Amino acid sequence: MGEFELIRRFFAAAACARPSPAVALGIGDDCALLQLPVGEQLAISTDTLVAGVHFPEDCDPFRLGQRALAAAASDLAAMGAAPLAFTLALTLPQADPAWLQAFALGLDCMARDCQLVLAGGDTTRGPLTINISVLGSVPAAQALHRSGARAGDLLCVGGTLGDAAAALPLVLGQGAAVPAELAARLCERYWAPQPQLALGQALRGKASAALDISDGLLADCTHLATASGVALKIEAARLPLSPGVVDWLGAEQSLACALGGGDDYRLVFTLPPAALSALQASWPGVTVIGQVLCGAGVQVVDAAGQTITAPRAGYQHFGGSGD
Amino acid sequence: MGEFELIRRFFAAAACARPSPAVALGIGDDCALLQLPVGEQLAISTDTLVAGVHFPEDCDPFRLGQRALAAAASDLAAMGAAPLAFTLALTLPQADPAWLQAFALGLDCMARDCQLVLAGGDTTRGPLTINISVLGSVPAAQALHRSGARAGDLLCVGGTLGDAAAALPLVLGQGAAVPAELAARLCERYWAPQPQLALGQALRGKASAALDISDGLLADCTHLATASGVALKIEAARLPLSPGVVDWLGAEQSLACALGGGDDYRLVFTLPPAALSALQASWPGVTVIGQVLCGAGVQVVDAAGQTITAPRAGYQHFGGSGD
Repeated sequence: MGEFELIRRFFAAAACARPSPAVALGIGDDCALLQLPVGEQLAISTDTLVAGVHFPEDCDPFRLGQRALAAAASDLAAMGAAPLAFTLALTLPQADPAWLQAFALGLDCMARDCQLVLAGGDTTRGPLTINISVLGSVPAAQALHRSGARAGDLLCVGGTLGDAAAALPLVLGQGAAVPAELAARLCERYWAPQPQLALGQALRGKASAALDISDGLLADCTHLATASGVALKIEAARLPLSPGVVDWLGAEQSLACALGGGDDYRLVFTLPPAALSALQASWPGVTVIGQVLCGAGVQVVDAAGQTITAPRAGYQHFGGSGD
Repeated sequence: MGEFELIRRFFAAAACARPSPAVALGIGDDCALLQLPVGEQLAISTDTLVAGVHFPEDCDPFRLGQRALAAAASDLAAMGAAPLAFTLALTLPQADPAWLQAFALGLDCMARDCQLVLAGGDTTRGPLTINISVLGSVPAAQALHRSGARAGDLLCVGGTLGDAAAALPLVLGQGAAVPAELAARLCERYWAPQPQLALGQALRGKASAALDISDGLLADCTHLATASGVALKIEAARLPLSPGVVDWLGAEQSLACALGGGDDYRLVFTLPPAALSALQASWPGVTVIGQVLCGAGVQVVDAAGQTITAPRAGYQHFGGSGD
């Protein structure tokens, strides 16, 4: 038996490959079989992370496993889908047992948080690349699309913005002077973002449009505005920033991180005003950051209502052009 | 808009991303949404092909697109699943329009043959890697597993064996002396294998176990025997070989290709004897190649019933150790 066959057996025995009512047949046959709840549609999204492009070659494997699954699962949250399962296609230059053990632990950790079961996969030799496909279910016609925003809706986010962007210099070891507690908290937000799966499901039948912030608030709001055929106005003063980040970076740079920084994996969504108070009663982290207007494009205004040029974030994903 | 965003739009506009009743929402949102037939389970399989490991770096992109999808779709055939959709996660060193155009055409071609719709994907920068996840549906409890073979069943295959292995020297440009017509036919079998999707569905409720031959008949029969807890006896004289290959390579080397050669993507399955004649009436390519016995392991016998040592095929997948 080759070393890659051993890796397959290793993942088949991993905690996140545990039995689940949704997975009728898991790892080991030609396909996995999933049982969807009656009347629900399957939601699927696939994401690839490449060493040297999306993460450093020598990246801590535990953190890498955690973050890769979180980033993929966030797409289920953005559709309002309930998590079911995922597949892992892992390309590795060699079989390193210590690396695999740590990677699988990180994956397990996030799989438990997200209630996702490892249902299948593939292991091949080659440059380190991680592909994850996540599978979820959503009642027919209740999925959250990018295209449903209407003029008059509120523009909301699910939590603080810009933390991952603020963490990037720390993650890259660029040694900024930052209090240790804050550094630990930001790095945790970068490496172990929590996909807002429960919030996404709570938004079914309420939000008119939604997506998750992976490219940065401005870029992702532009996607939403384009898909919906509306304009979005963001009020800079209402953006929820982490207090520690403002104290450390100052207001302007914090705002830049919040507007331009990616990898936050918060939900951004539009909501008819009548639905706000009931939602905030259950989800106090939900914050109104602007409005949906007729027109096109995304405008950022200051507290006086004057359009401001969005400050350059200086932020990019690790590697910058990995897409 | 970056070049990789352009690639995404290019694939979203491809013929194989055409609307389909099964795909409620295709490319362009956070997830694709699939509608399964009532009472059916989802079958999913994921496969990665890496340049320099599974195919040459300078591989013809049309053929590569065709073959990558065929290899993935064959796993649906092996489960008896009806094809629905696929996702494509493409990692590319750069955006080369001519390469992409040809790759997408090859993909389209095989997608049409297999009735698969491109429902979503991801495009990233990095070493050339193709990941395809195929999605199908199968009525609950009718999927073909590897584990159902019982002593007394017949061992069958869906068509000729060893063609892809015989083609490998031609594919690798090792210039064997071979008639041009045969060379063209073998290369077609290598580059555009036809997943036996209709046969797989016809085997529902009939075959006791099935898988597709990707690692080679002997290796894949070993998987089936192990999963089912049975022994398999293969009668070498009954293996369906392509006449042109026997004339070219001789009996012994043709047999070696049939037993050890991978990438044929024929179905191998076990069948209660009573079901054979009805099946062969509709599927004349179905051939009995042996029996299921009590015990363990795979035995190959000659026409006199004597165990023969399986000749070394000399075959390996391109690159040999890609897994």
